[in-house]
Amino acid sequence: MKNKKYIFITIEGGEGCGKTTQSKLLKKYLEDKGFKVILTREPGGSTVAEQVRTILLNPSFKVVPLCELMLYEASRAQHLEEIIKPNLKNGCVVICDRFTDSTLAYQGYARKLDKNIINKLNDIASCGIKPDITFYLDVKPEEGIKRAKSVYKGKLTGGDRIEKESINFHNKVREGFLKLAKKYPARIKKIETKNGIEETQRNIIEVMNKFLLRKGFIKKS
Amino acid sequence: MKNKKYIFITIEGGEGCGKTTQSKLLKKYLEDKGFKVILTREPGGSTVAEQVRTILLNPSFKVVPLCELMLYEASRAQHLEEIIKPNLKNGCVVICDRFTDSTLAYQGYARKLDKNIINKLNDIASCGIKPDITFYLDVKPEEGIKRAKSVYKGKLTGGDRIEKESINFHNKVREGFLKLAKKYPARIKKIETKNGIEETQRNIIEVMNKFLLRKGFIKKS
Repeated sequence: MKNKKYIFITIEGGEGCGKTTQSKLLKKYLEDKGFKVILTREPGGSTVAEQVRTILLNPSFKVVPLCELMLYEASRAQHLEEIIKPNLKNGCVVICDRFTDSTLAYQGYARKLDKNIINKLNDIASCGIKPDITFYLDVKPEEGIKRAKSVYKGKLTGGDRIEKESINFHNKVREGFLKLAKKYPARIKKIETKNGIEETQRNIIEVMNKFLLRKGFIKKS
Repeated sequence: MKNKKYIFITIEGGEGCGKTTQSKLLKKYLEDKGFKVILTREPGGSTVAEQVRTILLNPSFKVVPLCELMLYEASRAQHLEEIIKPNLKNGCVVICDRFTDSTLAYQGYARKLDKNIINKLNDIASCGIKPDITFYLDVKPEEGIKRAKSVYKGKLTGGDRIEKESINFHNKVREGFLKLAKKYPARIKKIETKNGIEETQRNIIEVMNKFLLRKGFIKKS
């Protein structure tokens, strides 16, 4: 394994696209290859950021779009400083469930906030740290929401503030992700999820291996 | 009274400078003159913003400077949309305890975050709404902290996360406010507080009356 300092992987996608499951599977796969891996998530991942998360996802709060954007960026700044940066510095692979692309998809494409402002805030909050590779897990909103709802079955909350948005909102989020994947094809890899967990994982691992080979982290066997 | 839509007043200053007391006195004075007045404060002033405030002022949290800045801006965006804008629109005088100048003094001059970034974020969060007049209540940090502490006497908390900062930090905050008052003399009015509540109030009212006359809100008697 080449002595490169770190790999920063982000997993993106709409509600119920399988980010959590696939992040865990990817972590296991990379650990089996000998990498040290940490798995973290946005919004949250540190004490303060988790506090911000509780505000962001509380379905009873009416958060205005600009405040919502700023809260995500605040949480990002804290999470980056406390978790992502030190782990990358220690030679870990960091897998982050959601990052700057989510902000563009949700607050930009869906909530219609100015994308220039979002890009500016994304840059400020992430202090120039950019993902090396991003997996965008594509799912039709109807399908994703169905999956997300089955997770909450029997629980009191019945989904968080974002999951409760309309299908129209989630369609715009998806359009946003698809546009971003088209705009940054070298970084963002679109992964189909409709054929189940195993095939999705196979697709992710195939792309991951190509990346590791290209960057010299592993050698052709 | 001339039919101008609103007056947006901000009260600024370091810990223990008497903002709360003077805001209340100014409110009463303006109400006696026939104005509708609301008094509000940053960080906070609305349900979501008050939630953010609890994170910001919790002494046990280690909030990184950039996250702190973003949280203040998030709280500002919500507060502006929910409280300040609608009240100004309804013809109220809004007195706000802390606003954008505090962010420059605390996060810029004292925490040394990039002032260009702060100005950018201040502009984004406040959507172009600028104070018509700002009272900066000047107090020496040693004196202010003593006053602030006497308020907390016998309480469990013993001051919030910001009040617990060093005297050096509070000196930098003061230098920041003084520089801002010098930079924007038409808007920011520096008020001495060392001679007690009554004299401070007289000074504020003198400046306030000049403003009201100049802008045509009241006539010379």
